[in-house]
Amino acid sequence: MPAGELRYPSPLNSSATKTPPDEEEVWAQIKTEARYDAESKPALASYLYSTILSHSSLERSLAFHLGNKLCSSTLLSTLLYDLFLNTISSDSALLAPTVADLHATRARDPACVSFSHCLLNYKGFLACQAHRVSHKLWSQSCRPLVLALHSRISDVFAVDIHPAAKIGKGILFDHATGVVIGDTAVIGNNVSILHHVTLGGTGKACGDRHPKIGDGVLIRAGATILGNVKIGEGAKIGAGSVVLIDVPLRTTAVGNPARLVGGKEKPARHEECPGESMDHTSFITDWSDYII
Amino acid sequence: MPAGELRYPSPLNSSATKTPPDEEEVWAQIKTEARYDAESKPALASYLYSTILSHSSLERSLAFHLGNKLCSSTLLSTLLYDLFLNTISSDSALLAPTVADLHATRARDPACVSFSHCLLNYKGFLACQAHRVSHKLWSQSCRPLVLALHSRISDVFAVDIHPAAKIGKGILFDHATGVVIGDTAVIGNNVSILHHVTLGGTGKACGDRHPKIGDGVLIRAGATILGNVKIGEGAKIGAGSVVLIDVPLRTTAVGNPARLVGGKEKPARHEECPGESMDHTSFITDWSDYII
Amino acid sequence: MPAGELRYPSPLNSSATKTPPDEEEVWAQIKTEARYDAESKPALASYLYSTILSHSSLERSLAFHLGNKLCSSTLLSTLLYDLFLNTISSDSALLAPTVADLHATRARDPACVSFSHCLLNYKGFLACQAHRVSHKLWSQSCRPLVLALHSRISDVFAVDIHPAAKIGKGILFDHATGVVIGDTAVIGNNVSILHHVTLGGTGKACGDRHPKIGDGVLIRAGATILGNVKIGEGAKIGAGSVVLIDVPLRTTAVGNPARLVGGKEKPARHEECPGESMDHTSFITDWSDYII
Amino acid sequence: MPAGELRYPSPLNSSATKTPPDEEEVWAQIKTEARYDAESKPALASYLYSTILSHSSLERSLAFHLGNKLCSSTLLSTLLYDLFLNTISSDSALLAPTVADLHATRARDPACVSFSHCLLNYKGFLACQAHRVSHKLWSQSCRPLVLALHSRISDVFAVDIHPAAKIGKGILFDHATGVVIGDTAVIGNNVSILHHVTLGGTGKACGDRHPKIGDGVLIRAGATILGNVKIGEGAKIGAGSVVLIDVPLRTTAVGNPARLVGGKEKPARHEECPGESMDHTSFITDWSDYII
Amino acid sequence: MPAGELRYPSPLNSSATKTPPDEEEVWAQIKTEARYDAESKPALASYLYSTILSHSSLERSLAFHLGNKLCSSTLLSTLLYDLFLNTISSDSALLAPTVADLHATRARDPACVSFSHCLLNYKGFLACQAHRVSHKLWSQSCRPLVLALHSRISDVFAVDIHPAAKIGKGILFDHATGVVIGDTAVIGNNVSILHHVTLGGTGKACGDRHPKIGDGVLIRAGATILGNVKIGEGAKIGAGSVVLIDVPLRTTAVGNPARLVGGKEKPARHEECPGESMDHTSFITDWSDYII
Amino acid sequence: MPAGELRYPSPLNSSATKTPPDEEEVWAQIKTEARYDAESKPALASYLYSTILSHSSLERSLAFHLGNKLCSSTLLSTLLYDLFLNTISSDSALLAPTVADLHATRARDPACVSFSHCLLNYKGFLACQAHRVSHKLWSQSCRPLVLALHSRISDVFAVDIHPAAKIGKGILFDHATGVVIGDTAVIGNNVSILHHVTLGGTGKACGDRHPKIGDGVLIRAGATILGNVKIGEGAKIGAGSVVLIDVPLRTTAVGNPARLVGGKEKPARHEECPGESMDHTSFITDWSDYII
Repeated sequence: MPAGELRYPSPLNSSATKTPPDEEEVWAQIKTEARYDAESKPALASYLYSTILSHSSLERSLAFHLGNKLCSSTLLSTLLYDLFLNTISSDSALLAPTVADLHATRARDPACVSFSHCLLNYKGFLACQAHRVSHKLWSQSCRPLVLALHSRISDVFAVDIHPAAKIGKGILFDHATGVVIGDTAVIGNNVSILHHVTLGGTGKACGDRHPKIGDGVLIRAGATILGNVKIGEGAKIGAGSVVLIDVPLRTTAVGNPARLVGGKEKPARHEECPGESMDHTSFITDWSDYII
Repeated sequence: MPAGELRYPSPLNSSATKTPPDEEEVWAQIKTEARYDAESKPALASYLYSTILSHSSLERSLAFHLGNKLCSSTLLSTLLYDLFLNTISSDSALLAPTVADLHATRARDPACVSFSHCLLNYKGFLACQAHRVSHKLWSQSCRPLVLALHSRISDVFAVDIHPAAKIGKGILFDHATGVVIGDTAVIGNNVSILHHVTLGGTGKACGDRHPKIGDGVLIRAGATILGNVKIGEGAKIGAGSVVLIDVPLRTTAVGNPARLVGGKEKPARHEECPGESMDHTSFITDWSDYII
Repeated sequence: MPAGELRYPSPLNSSATKTPPDEEEVWAQIKTEARYDAESKPALASYLYSTILSHSSLERSLAFHLGNKLCSSTLLSTLLYDLFLNTISSDSALLAPTVADLHATRARDPACVSFSHCLLNYKGFLACQAHRVSHKLWSQSCRPLVLALHSRISDVFAVDIHPAAKIGKGILFDHATGVVIGDTAVIGNNVSILHHVTLGGTGKACGDRHPKIGDGVLIRAGATILGNVKIGEGAKIGAGSVVLIDVPLRTTAVGNPARLVGGKEKPARHEECPGESMDHTSFITDWSDYII
Repeated sequence: MPAGELRYPSPLNSSATKTPPDEEEVWAQIKTEARYDAESKPALASYLYSTILSHSSLERSLAFHLGNKLCSSTLLSTLLYDLFLNTISSDSALLAPTVADLHATRARDPACVSFSHCLLNYKGFLACQAHRVSHKLWSQSCRPLVLALHSRISDVFAVDIHPAAKIGKGILFDHATGVVIGDTAVIGNNVSILHHVTLGGTGKACGDRHPKIGDGVLIRAGATILGNVKIGEGAKIGAGSVVLIDVPLRTTAVGNPARLVGGKEKPARHEECPGESMDHTSFITDWSDYII
Repeated sequence: MPAGELRYPSPLNSSATKTPPDEEEVWAQIKTEARYDAESKPALASYLYSTILSHSSLERSLAFHLGNKLCSSTLLSTLLYDLFLNTISSDSALLAPTVADLHATRARDPACVSFSHCLLNYKGFLACQAHRVSHKLWSQSCRPLVLALHSRISDVFAVDIHPAAKIGKGILFDHATGVVIGDTAVIGNNVSILHHVTLGGTGKACGDRHPKIGDGVLIRAGATILGNVKIGEGAKIGAGSVVLIDVPLRTTAVGNPARLVGGKEKPARHEECPGESMDHTSFITDWSDYII
Repeated sequence: MPAGELRYPSPLNSSATKTPPDEEEVWAQIKTEARYDAESKPALASYLYSTILSHSSLERSLAFHLGNKLCSSTLLSTLLYDLFLNTISSDSALLAPTVADLHATRARDPACVSFSHCLLNYKGFLACQAHRVSHKLWSQSCRPLVLALHSRISDVFAVDIHPAAKIGKGILFDHATGVVIGDTAVIGNNVSILHHVTLGGTGKACGDRHPKIGDGVLIRAGATILGNVKIGEGAKIGAGSVVLIDVPLRTTAVGNPARLVGGKEKPARHEECPGESMDHTSFITDWSDYII
């Protein structure tokens, strides 16, 4: 917990259990955190009550917060709140990825001090949840509405994920400003993506033209991956890389244009899952060695 | 039309004509699309009526939409609406580039499903139109006002185009987040620019210090072009490139620092116009060959 | 003053003095500029009176402007105004860096036409001042409130500076969109940072894991500096560089991964202070020579 | 239909039926009207879609409209929308009085051109529906919240009905500005009340201290009825009257202080039900005769 | 000028002319006043610039001010501004009554310190001007839109004038809260009407059922005039009166029910024009004599 | 406590003391009430924290609440908050009448359940406090600003008190809609005034032309008092009365025109102080006897 020294009480005796807490537990923890913060800092209490403590469930809190964040003078908060709440309520499978994203952010980002911190303040988390709802609606012939929502998400969060893109669960979008993900992109589970990352199409093609990101991949700040390439499970993409080629599983691609660390023929393979460990740096020595 | 399966009726029998539809035709098409969407999705109808269907012309719709997007508590929507409408109305030449931009976006971006999609939801399109008005006002001794507007465009769209920059017509700003264009930059016609692109000055100089982009150029995501360099007609600039040198016409520059594909002395020359074809990828093989 | 031809009267006979004007002088100059602009352009006068001319001091004007910029439907402008005003008023040392930043922006950015232009319209300047207040509050056990503010700054300005980061005075954040600075980063005095710059952590570590930037450093657009590395005084970091290593004082690092111009062993050393001179380009010839 | 010449199509073949249309029929009629108006006047369509046509039921439309009308910067529209929608949805008996009020307004006020006119634009109707929800919540230990809502209704509509007051169905509050109704007041069914009417307490008492209004009563503009008095069924209260006494059924009270037309001992009795016929004037000749 | 000691400079040498200043002169005077106030009180300057000083004509200023006063989350200020401006601009006869109302308010209300005071702050004046526009639109088949506007005027100003009512010029609505005027009412020129005045219909009738008010009439606070009665030129209606009968010219009606001062057969006739002199009190002695 | 069954804990052992609690005690009680309500009803907690619990003093809470209630798109909440806070803070005598008004409302209105209920929700209380600040500013050459504020109070609360009017302490404005008080009116201490009450000028005169209300007076709903008449201490004015004459101390005036109960020569005199006892009804029998 390097970014602060906040220590929240835990509402649950979770020591004996290894399994990640489910939605109910996470929501209870979020309320405990918010109550603790509201008591410590009355100036913030109004914000915490309106966004968290006045709601009876995580889905209501999230629908409220997104509705108020994404509304404009021509797309009213009540309309968006209704849209988010009805969509999340109508599909019981929609909330599990949200809970997994909360865990991913809390576990992987040392600057994240609590679940409520993530829920309220992480633009990457919020943009991703708005995307999850948009993606659901995309398959239900609401496309012009979803495109309007897509535009609001891009205006408000500077995160531009096409509603058709498929995104797994347990995703961390860290910092998130400038992320662009095209409509035929697919992202697996437990992926970590930093800011300014592009999963872009190749202009010529019209069909399936965006990257496929395997489980546990880590894509560092400013990386640009273009075309229908495959980034294998557990691969690492270095900051500022421009990737136009497939990257095998558990290998590292760096540079512009990106090359595989260890060489094209026999790239070095790492053991850990970088999307989860967020180990951004193990390749530094290697690469320095490789290049100079 | 890969991003969706939306099929809008066409209000005009345009099959016999080769020339691109003019403002009247585009506006008629936009209204047809909006009417179709409003009927299909009542939740969106309020948005479509207030932004498009209640207006009598494209310029009124655009002025209304920009006024509502860019207003703040200290710059009221009515003031901005008035400013946009009066400026566009006072110069009959201002709308033609807007129409050309609508065509460019519709034709080049496979994710753009309709003209109304572009008009309402493309932050790059909207930022560019707000720039066109700002640029007009810039030459009319309204500079402090225009700089306030410039600031709002950068806040709301995360697109930072100096009002003095000269921009041609038929421009596609795709995704657009993070674009920065300096005050002595010049952009030709039919150019396509992706997100995170910088046309930057060089700090030392005070005069003409930004890039000059020729007609039909394609600049891919994250490219940084610095200084008063000349990018020739139909050139391609690769994603993530850092370009500090002139790039001859119909050649490709890639890498950081950017080199010409095919070599400095005799760079490879392509035939198509990449700003229009959006062919981002033809150089991949070449480059891969070139580098490794 | 290349970006315009605005010439403001000066309220003070400052010709005889070499020392930079203090807060009182800057505030007097800002009011003179705003009065001049309000008289020239009545459409802008309402904006200038509400943001500058109705206030009795720079701190009130700044607190008002930030409160209105950063408020949302759940964080009211009155609450934020109060928070900013009380914090700035309570610590007489807080305003000096603000004044130094105004000078830095005015002196180094040729597009900045006046102090009031910077105060009202530079998102980098505004984000930095909001950070200065956040950083002060961070040390006063207001962390959940400060994190909410951090989130608003990132939403509104697309500038993401962790409240714990330490930032010196006389800083220019030019264009600023997409800047990300982590919580253990330290920035010295008279530093210039362009847009899309990342001072990022390395995911593995939990403690002191972000860059330390020396006085007078210039970091150009899109550069990514990762890990607890030291960028020496007066160093230059090239656009789009990915820096994973220490950079000695008054040397230049470029490329992805970044290398020192002149070579690792005996890098070329420049004389001027690039953070202040903003000389972005002197290395171009060198580098071109070096690479090709 | 004297106030206009609006003729709306009817969605239902209602000629054969004598019974007043139920909620479904009224809602269908409201949508038909709104659709007709939206088509005739695009400038209004956005308003009609957001308030009526985008909603799937009368209760949703009403909750949306009240939430947007009554919200403030400290009581958000999403919170109020939620409160109204949940309360109306949770009690199936709550909507019948609303439908009866729509009929009452349409039938009795010659200036009311349609059901949608009443639903959207009659502050008396809207204040009464907000009261119906408040009254429901009053009995559910939400008193501080209900009092905040009471205050908003009084601010926005200038209609001040204490949440504890009991109000029957088929009520017309015509013009409505300035109506004040105390907490132990009871109003029967099919009552018509004009603007500036007070059903006030008597300051001395603390218990049951407000008027009881029988079915079918008509209370004209500016009448003040004070204390726990009984206004009998079908009575008429003249404009500007100050009533401190019981009024027998089907009699008329006029003047300040109010006297019964025809005399205290044997007051004149009328046959019709003035609350429904809205016959304000039959007593004029009588009274003129009586007085002079 | 008892309510203050404000003395504004006059922009025009109007001493030699007897005729009331026309629109141009009034607008010049309003700008002079606003400029004077803005200079004296910077805290107000933002308000004065946005409402008056940034506009090029009285009609633009009025349209802007009404648009911002009457807008809501579902009826945007830009829409209303457009509606007001287009309507006023399209009929050159619409502004003369506005100018006459400004003169009437300034001349008759001792508490009115300037034309700009009336234009900005008199709810009676503003409601009347909004009515003038509504009335114009009423005759142009925009009824549902006009009824929505009518509702907003009643919400915001607590002034409820049916759009069909005909109102002359040179009208003073003093204080104005609670005024209700029905759809077949007609008001002549130079009439003064205080707050809580009702010109009401009689419920029974459906056709022409509201009062006709002659030129120069004065109707004092709380008076209720009901039915298609005729109030003769220069008549006075006492405070709190309930008038159900014709009132001959230059006579006074008082009481509930109202009687003519001097008796039904030979009422006392006054010489002055009370609507203009605002002499509310000459009848007091008479009446006291008459009654006791 | 007839209007509810709310029972708030008391923060202070106030049983032994007879003197009314001062500002500190009242503020402590208000916070206790708000905390209790916030805990009972999370949906309201956000409102209670933002308006009361986040503030360090009664004056800050009041300035915040009034700023948010009275703001508009052209008069920002931050400006009004600043104005209210600075004015109240600068004059230590300004808060005592506010505290006395809180006591008066709590003690005299059976529907008032708590101090916080009054502070947050009573438009009469809020309009009166806004008037107290306006009146203070009126004497400080801020007249155009104060008139703009006056206009907002009349728009928002439908309460129209001229800033020059002098108002004592311990005032209850009950319901308050439609109250109009002219600029030379004077109101003593411990007065109770109901809705629709007018203290009006007489149009003819220009100087001191409004009523003078003695201590302890009770003015009931709809009463109109006109001209520079004197209402003696402890007098009662009946509902709907039109008073054009002086009323001696501890007598009762009723009717239109008002007569003294007991007759002009030897009016009946009561013992209690009706402004405090709120005994509205003791005169009923008398009057009924008198008239019929």
